[in-house]
Amino acid sequence: MLNFVNLFVRHVTKQNVLVKLQYSSQVLPQFSSEKYNKTRKDFTTAESRDLDYFKKILGAQRVLTEDSDVLPFNVDWFKNCRGQSKIVLKPKSVQEVSQILSYCNQRKIAICPQGGNTSVVGGGVPMFDEVILNLSLMNQIISLDAISGTLVCEAGCILENLDNYVREHELIMPIDLGAKGTCHIGGNVSTNAGGIRLLRYGNLHGSILGVEAVKADGTIINCLKTLKKDNTGYHLKHLFIGSEGTLGVVTKVAIHCPVKPKSVTVGFFGLDNFKNILKLYRSAKSSLGEILSAFEMIDREALNSSAKYLNQNLPISEYPFYVLVETHGSNETHDEEKLTQFLSKEMESGLILDGTVTSEPGKMQYIWRFRESIPAADLAGAYLYTYDVSLPQNHYYEIVPLLRERLGDKATKVCGFGHIGDGNIHIDVVVPEYSSEITNIIEPFLFEEVAKRNGSVSAEHGVGCRKPHLIHYSVDEDAIQLMRDLKNVMDPNGILNPYKVLPDVYE
Amino acid sequence: MLNFVNLFVRHVTKQNVLVKLQYSSQVLPQFSSEKYNKTRKDFTTAESRDLDYFKKILGAQRVLTEDSDVLPFNVDWFKNCRGQSKIVLKPKSVQEVSQILSYCNQRKIAICPQGGNTSVVGGGVPMFDEVILNLSLMNQIISLDAISGTLVCEAGCILENLDNYVREHELIMPIDLGAKGTCHIGGNVSTNAGGIRLLRYGNLHGSILGVEAVKADGTIINCLKTLKKDNTGYHLKHLFIGSEGTLGVVTKVAIHCPVKPKSVTVGFFGLDNFKNILKLYRSAKSSLGEILSAFEMIDREALNSSAKYLNQNLPISEYPFYVLVETHGSNETHDEEKLTQFLSKEMESGLILDGTVTSEPGKMQYIWRFRESIPAADLAGAYLYTYDVSLPQNHYYEIVPLLRERLGDKATKVCGFGHIGDGNIHIDVVVPEYSSEITNIIEPFLFEEVAKRNGSVSAEHGVGCRKPHLIHYSVDEDAIQLMRDLKNVMDPNGILNPYKVLPDVYE
Repeated sequence: MLNFVNLFVRHVTKQNVLVKLQYSSQVLPQFSSEKYNKTRKDFTTAESRDLDYFKKILGAQRVLTEDSDVLPFNVDWFKNCRGQSKIVLKPKSVQEVSQILSYCNQRKIAICPQGGNTSVVGGGVPMFDEVILNLSLMNQIISLDAISGTLVCEAGCILENLDNYVREHELIMPIDLGAKGTCHIGGNVSTNAGGIRLLRYGNLHGSILGVEAVKADGTIINCLKTLKKDNTGYHLKHLFIGSEGTLGVVTKVAIHCPVKPKSVTVGFFGLDNFKNILKLYRSAKSSLGEILSAFEMIDREALNSSAKYLNQNLPISEYPFYVLVETHGSNETHDEEKLTQFLSKEMESGLILDGTVTSEPGKMQYIWRFRESIPAADLAGAYLYTYDVSLPQNHYYEIVPLLRERLGDKATKVCGFGHIGDGNIHIDVVVPEYSSEITNIIEPFLFEEVAKRNGSVSAEHGVGCRKPHLIHYSVDEDAIQLMRDLKNVMDPNGILNPYKVLPDVYE
Repeated sequence: MLNFVNLFVRHVTKQNVLVKLQYSSQVLPQFSSEKYNKTRKDFTTAESRDLDYFKKILGAQRVLTEDSDVLPFNVDWFKNCRGQSKIVLKPKSVQEVSQILSYCNQRKIAICPQGGNTSVVGGGVPMFDEVILNLSLMNQIISLDAISGTLVCEAGCILENLDNYVREHELIMPIDLGAKGTCHIGGNVSTNAGGIRLLRYGNLHGSILGVEAVKADGTIINCLKTLKKDNTGYHLKHLFIGSEGTLGVVTKVAIHCPVKPKSVTVGFFGLDNFKNILKLYRSAKSSLGEILSAFEMIDREALNSSAKYLNQNLPISEYPFYVLVETHGSNETHDEEKLTQFLSKEMESGLILDGTVTSEPGKMQYIWRFRESIPAADLAGAYLYTYDVSLPQNHYYEIVPLLRERLGDKATKVCGFGHIGDGNIHIDVVVPEYSSEITNIIEPFLFEEVAKRNGSVSAEHGVGCRKPHLIHYSVDEDAIQLMRDLKNVMDPNGILNPYKVLPDVYE
């Protein structure tokens, strides 16, 4: 992902290059405001006196205003969204964040908080000229209590760096996701990121012990407790988990880190049909019980795409479906025994047609890379519609063949993969180029099908700027109204990440 | 606990008996309003036309107004709090709850939502004449998906009944606590109950998949999703988890139930001093890893109290400290091997002085009973000050000896026990009778000592009517103000569980 950003910087150092490129869908996406047909709200446009104030707070170095400097922060990694901000601010402390927000709130200048900019729904890039508040310089680890497993750090820490750090102390981060090398923990918290190991270590509402966040008016809300049990009043931290920076800017987090497993094993299996995947999942829950840490499914199309992108051979021969199972345990002998018993039982039963099991780090990484590279593979060299939905497990895969049939040759590929243990499927539709015709074939059809099956139109990636008009498929009007009430009481001027999460009243 | 309620009913069938008994501290506690020096707020006093309305909604049978019928609902199980309500309502559906709240909100009649009435902080009984909304008739199980482990039920279901039910489907409830035979799941959710197995299965913010709740104005907020991943807008359900019925009345919950362990083992160990308990905890986390489901500590005084109450011999000979370890696993041979290796290692190291390990259900229950009976034992025949606080583990036990010294012979007993894995200690002070002198010796001293050590003055039992004036020890003013803002937007007339959770502005 860093390559992508570097590419931009290289391409746009001269203003004329920028002008040439900005309408080329191959390189720079269309402006989000045009693509999503948005009207700018009545915010103040930042002017030179505002820049002077920002520079007074941060120093000139941490206020970016050159187009070439600002551009990478305006575009998301998926090349779906593009804002028109003229200013990037890079605070280094909660006090600076507080001063900036307090000022912007008074001046009614809109703000787009930004972490690692890996959002799939455009949550981290501006829609118009919102000032980008990028937290990448707030990247300090504050403390680690290795006994209780409590890590306290700033929001701009990169997930993978944190994982490497706590691993030195025999702990692991409770979340893991494909973008770990780029995404920030603050962004993970703000979007309630799910990821690969939720099945084992639970969601962030369970793992996050404390949060420090700044409200729109600059008030610092300090819920940075490191206690596992704390029932003193309303549980405010949960307001900031998953509200995508619209209720406050997360500046620090305290997170519970589980013990690093002494033994890790990965199994990769080929299966004949989806029904067998569900049967295998039930069997794994029973046989592998407490050591099951991931149960991922990948369909043939998704795996082939990834193999081509990685230019590597498949780990096993070709099957309609694949399952990746990972175990985390404290006793290698016990874990191997459990996994071997499971494998031999299910090869005998015929659920598993072929498989490989390994506990060698290099081989495990090799297998995981096939799973983790699918989004990048689908994104490479074409336009990608990517959907992140939850469904009850018995309906998990139904929408993929429906979409395939509906799109016919209009799509280069329709594939499904995801975290079956959590009911979360990612559906990718790859087409040669974006067109509203294709959009209209997929949407709202896909969302209606999800709603029919009591699913969620946004499982782990949030709403951002791309889905506010869809949340009514999953949330009723009274609940949306309560969300609006909360937004109104916490950010009455609406300056925090506008155009995101909540639909406008007319939508 | 049911015995307690029956006792009341038997004793108070005649009005004159009630009058005689009501000031006897041995039988009926003092009115909370006097004890906590509260002034009634400006709510409407329900009158006959209101009763007519309630009877129209519920039928006369489910509107209790006889003093003898109402009394048990006015007093909490710990005999600490006593309200003066004249009316108990027993709705059977969310629509009835909605109608009642909508009406009361318009009439400005205050409401006290009530579950199993096992609150330790008086959260479930009224302060003055709030109408009691008792949910015990909303006790239907709605659905169970045994594959994904999702239970949906009404709020008035008793925790133990639910556990028995899901066990028939090879699942368990993710929470377990001493009051399980009486407490309601709705109360568990509303108070974010912790309990014994939080160490393994996490807290309710992680386990609760969905909530249906009714706002003060009668609006039904339906977040009753059964999905593990759902990021569609603000995560409203967390507003109702732990807000003790002050933001809404929880009417239904969807909860994730883990797989029932195939193998359960309990170890009970004697130790010499508290430092060794911490060492043992570290060792257990490493050796027992993923199968560790409870790690409880009990001091000598607490265990002796429980043994005397149960009239049973101690499971092992007498030591200054005891540890109860429980494992949940999927393979009995593996689990026993892990626990035996752990035991022999730590008996050799000298951390464990004596111990017993069992996987026989009867014997495990026998051991657990000593732990679970401590509150009832301390409560029997005397006045009990009970404190539920969280502390960083290295300060976990420090306050118990401090209090012992400070109270001298004024206390019959000062003891500590709790969930060390979660940093949650319960401190019981038993005295012959309540007196403000003793209260002043303990408080605010104890809370100041907790705050000094960055602990929480309410770990798992909440704030209720007994702790609003204390939350400033754990929460700063800006956070309290945000809580007030939330209360104001969700319950502008303040009718829901008034005098609870949030301190009055002057407190």
